[in-house]
Amino acid sequence: MKSRESVLNATYSVRCDSLGRVALLTVLAEDPGQVVRMASGYRVVLGQVGTMDVQRVIAAVETAARREGLIADGYEEEHALYHAILEALHGIGRGQLGLGNLLRTAALRFSIVRGPRWAGEQAEWIAVALYGTIGQPVKGNEHEVVGLGINHL
Amino acid sequence: MKSRESVLNATYSVRCDSLGRVALLTVLAEDPGQVVRMASGYRVVLGQVGTMDVQRVIAAVETAARREGLIADGYEEEHALYHAILEALHGIGRGQLGLGNLLRTAALRFSIVRGPRWAGEQAEWIAVALYGTIGQPVKGNEHEVVGLGINHL
Amino acid sequence: MKSRESVLNATYSVRCDSLGRVALLTVLAEDPGQVVRMASGYRVVLGQVGTMDVQRVIAAVETAARREGLIADGYEEEHALYHAILEALHGIGRGQLGLGNLLRTAALRFSIVRGPRWAGEQAEWIAVALYGTIGQPVKGNEHEVVGLGINHL
Amino acid sequence: MKSRESVLNATYSVRCDSLGRVALLTVLAEDPGQVVRMASGYRVVLGQVGTMDVQRVIAAVETAARREGLIADGYEEEHALYHAILEALHGIGRGQLGLGNLLRTAALRFSIVRGPRWAGEQAEWIAVALYGTIGQPVKGNEHEVVGLGINHL
Amino acid sequence: MKSRESVLNATYSVRCDSLGRVALLTVLAEDPGQVVRMASGYRVVLGQVGTMDVQRVIAAVETAARREGLIADGYEEEHALYHAILEALHGIGRGQLGLGNLLRTAALRFSIVRGPRWAGEQAEWIAVALYGTIGQPVKGNEHEVVGLGINHL
Amino acid sequence: MKSRESVLNATYSVRCDSLGRVALLTVLAEDPGQVVRMASGYRVVLGQVGTMDVQRVIAAVETAARREGLIADGYEEEHALYHAILEALHGIGRGQLGLGNLLRTAALRFSIVRGPRWAGEQAEWIAVALYGTIGQPVKGNEHEVVGLGINHL
Repeated sequence: MKSRESVLNATYSVRCDSLGRVALLTVLAEDPGQVVRMASGYRVVLGQVGTMDVQRVIAAVETAARREGLIADGYEEEHALYHAILEALHGIGRGQLGLGNLLRTAALRFSIVRGPRWAGEQAEWIAVALYGTIGQPVKGNEHEVVGLGINHL
Repeated sequence: MKSRESVLNATYSVRCDSLGRVALLTVLAEDPGQVVRMASGYRVVLGQVGTMDVQRVIAAVETAARREGLIADGYEEEHALYHAILEALHGIGRGQLGLGNLLRTAALRFSIVRGPRWAGEQAEWIAVALYGTIGQPVKGNEHEVVGLGINHL
Repeated sequence: MKSRESVLNATYSVRCDSLGRVALLTVLAEDPGQVVRMASGYRVVLGQVGTMDVQRVIAAVETAARREGLIADGYEEEHALYHAILEALHGIGRGQLGLGNLLRTAALRFSIVRGPRWAGEQAEWIAVALYGTIGQPVKGNEHEVVGLGINHL
Repeated sequence: MKSRESVLNATYSVRCDSLGRVALLTVLAEDPGQVVRMASGYRVVLGQVGTMDVQRVIAAVETAARREGLIADGYEEEHALYHAILEALHGIGRGQLGLGNLLRTAALRFSIVRGPRWAGEQAEWIAVALYGTIGQPVKGNEHEVVGLGINHL
Repeated sequence: MKSRESVLNATYSVRCDSLGRVALLTVLAEDPGQVVRMASGYRVVLGQVGTMDVQRVIAAVETAARREGLIADGYEEEHALYHAILEALHGIGRGQLGLGNLLRTAALRFSIVRGPRWAGEQAEWIAVALYGTIGQPVKGNEHEVVGLGINHL
Repeated sequence: MKSRESVLNATYSVRCDSLGRVALLTVLAEDPGQVVRMASGYRVVLGQVGTMDVQRVIAAVETAARREGLIADGYEEEHALYHAILEALHGIGRGQLGLGNLLRTAALRFSIVRGPRWAGEQAEWIAVALYGTIGQPVKGNEHEVVGLGINHL
C-alpha cells in the first residue's frame, strides 16, 4: 500500500533516556538498531516469537538473554528476568496469561534491556517489552498488544 | 542533566500506520502533536492523570473522550471504551487492578485513538494507551509502566 | 411499552428440580414466589441490593440468610455461604471483583437457596444467585449480569 | 424419578424481553424453542459442549455462531463474540479460566443471542450464556454453574 | 554440609493446637511423625509430588486423602478438599495457578489434616498445606513456596 | 484450656537452614527469638498487624523493614520487598488481594528475613512470611492463613 508507506513512515522526535522507553521504542521501531545506537548506557537484546504457548514466549526471551550474556550466572538475575517477562505478559494477556488454552495466538517482537531506570543513574534494572498482535488463529483476525515488565537486578 | 538532553533526544523513524502504534507513540512522544499529524485517518485525544485511585484513571479517560466527541452517544461506544481502558490497566497493574489499596501510585499520560486497526481499512476500532510511572508514594521510588487496550466499536 | 408486555410475558415450562435452577429461576422471575412454591425440598431467601461496594452485596446476602435462619449458628455455614457469594460475584465481575473502584455500579436481585444439588438427594448444599445490571453510574448505561455460587454445607 | 417430574416441571411466568434473560432462559429451558418463539426481536443459536479444555468451549460457541450466520464477516463481530464468551467463562470458572489443568470437567449448554439489550431498542448487542455442571472427572461429583457475557456489536 | 547440620537442626517449641499449624508444621518438619504424635485430635495424611502440571498436584492430594480414608464418600467432602487444595495452590502460584505453562516446575511436600480449627472444638474442618520449591526447570534455580487452604466439611 | 497447653506445646525438631523456613518458623513460633537465634546467617524483623485494609499490611511490613535497617537505601530493595509482600498476600487472599472490600478482616504476624536461599550460600534474598487468621469481622468466625513471598535483592 504505497500511500501508507509514504505518509506514515516519518521521523519522530523522542527521548530515549529511560529503561522503559528504550525497551518500548525498540519493539515499535522499523529499525531497532537506530534506537539501540541512541540509547547509550543501555544494553539491548532483541527477538521475536509467534506461538500459542505462553511458555514459549518465556523460553524465547530467557534464551535470548542468556545467549547474549545480558544476565549474570546464578539464579538471581534469571529470577529478575522471569518476573519481568511475566509482568510484560500481563499486558499481552489483559487478565489471563493464556494463549492457545483460550483459543488465541500471539506474534510478538521482544526486547530485553539492561540499564538504569533513568539515564545517568547507577543502579541497573531489567526491562522486557513485548509488542505484536494477538487474536484468533485465523489470519487477519488480530489486533495489537503491548506489555512491559521492569524489575530490579 | 545536560548530556541526557543532547545525546538522547534524537529522531527516530517509525511507522505509525496502525491503531496501537499511534496510541503508543503519542504517549511516548515529547511532542505528541507530531505523531498526531503523521497519523492520518486516526483521531487522537490526549490527557494525563496522577492518582492512587483506579477509578480516577477510568474517569479521566472517559471524560476526555466524551468532551472531545471521540465516541458517539449511546452506551455502545462507552462500553467499548470502558473495556479498552480496563485492558490497558492490566498492563499498568500487571496482575492486580489496584493502586492505593496496594500502597502504590501512578502518574500516567494517556491517549485515546479512533481509527482502523491497520491504516487504510474501513472498520473503526478504539485504542487506549497508558504510559507513565508506578511506585511507592515516595518521590523517585517508581518505574515505568505501559498499557494498551483495543476494542471494536 | 405496551407491546413489550403483551408479547413477552409468556409462560414457560421449566424443571426446577436442582439447586442451581431454583436459585437462577427465582432471580429471573417476575413472581419469584411462583418458583418457590414449585421447588419443594428447597428453602429460598430473596433480596436485592444496589451498590458500588462489593462488600455491601456480601453483607446484604449474609444478613438476609441469617435473618431468615437459612444457615445454622457457628462459622461453618457462614463460611460456606461466604464462598458461595464470592463465586457468584465472579459471574458479576467477570475478571475483577470490584465495582466503584472500577467506576461501575450494580443493581442486583439475589436468592439464597438451601437444599440438595438434585431434588430427592439427601445432602444439603447452598446456592447464591445474583442477577441484575452492571454499568456506568449513568442511568441506562448498563447491561445484564448473572452469577451463581454453589457450596457444600 | 417420577415425583420429580410431576411436581417440578411446572409452567413459570417470566418476561423474556431482555438480551440476558433470553440467553439465560434458553439454556435453562426444557424446550429452548419455547423461549426462542417468545423472544421476538432476538436471534438465538443453541448448542452444547462437554470438555476439559476451555478452548473447546470457545471453539464450540464460535463455530455455532458462524455456522448459523449470527455474526457478520470481518473481525469486529468475532472479537465481540470472543469477549462475550470469555466473560461467560468467568461465571463458569469462578476465579480461574481452567478446566482439565485444574482437574475438573464441564458439561455445558450454550446459547448465543443477538438483539437489543432491552426489547424494542435499536442497537444490537450479543450475549453468550453457559449453563451446566462442573466437577471432578467422576460421574456425579459435580454441581451446576452458569455464566453470561454481554458485549456491544 | 556439616556445620549446617550441627548449627541449624535444633529443637523448637511450638504450639500445635490449631488446624493450620498442624498442617504447616508437618510439611516443614524433618520428622513429620513427631508433629502428628503431638497433634492429638487431628488426623494427618502426608505425601509429596514434583511436577509441572497443576492437575497432578491436585490429583496427588486427592488420591492420598481418599486412599487413607480421610474424607467420607459422597461429593461433599471431595468438594471441600478440592477447594482447600486450590486455595493452597494460590500460595504456591502467587497470582497464577500455572506451572509448566509458565515454564516453571514445583517440588512439594503436602499434608492434609482433618480436625477442629482450634484444638478442643467440635466441628471438623479440612486443611491442605503445600511446601517446597518452585522455579525454572533447571536444578538450583528455585526458591521456597508455601500454601495453605482451609475449608469447612 | 489447660489440656491444650500441656499436650500440644511440645518441642519439635526442625531444620532452619533456608530462607523460607526461617521466615515461616518465626511467624509460627511461640517464641520467635528461639528461631532467630538458631538461624545464623539470617537477619529477621518481626511484627504484627490487624486490619481490613491490604495497604496497611504492606505499610506495616515496609515500615518495619526500613526502621530496622533491613533493606538498603534506594528503590531497588524497596521494590524487592514490595513484591515479596504482594506474593505473600496471595497466600493470604487466595485469589483476591482484598480484605474489607470483600467483607473480611485479617490479624497477622509477619516476619521479614534477609539471607541466602539456602544456608551457606552467598547471594542474599528477602522473604516475607505472613501468618494469622482471616474471616468475617465477627469474633471467632475466622480460620488460619499463611503466605510466603521470596525475592532476589
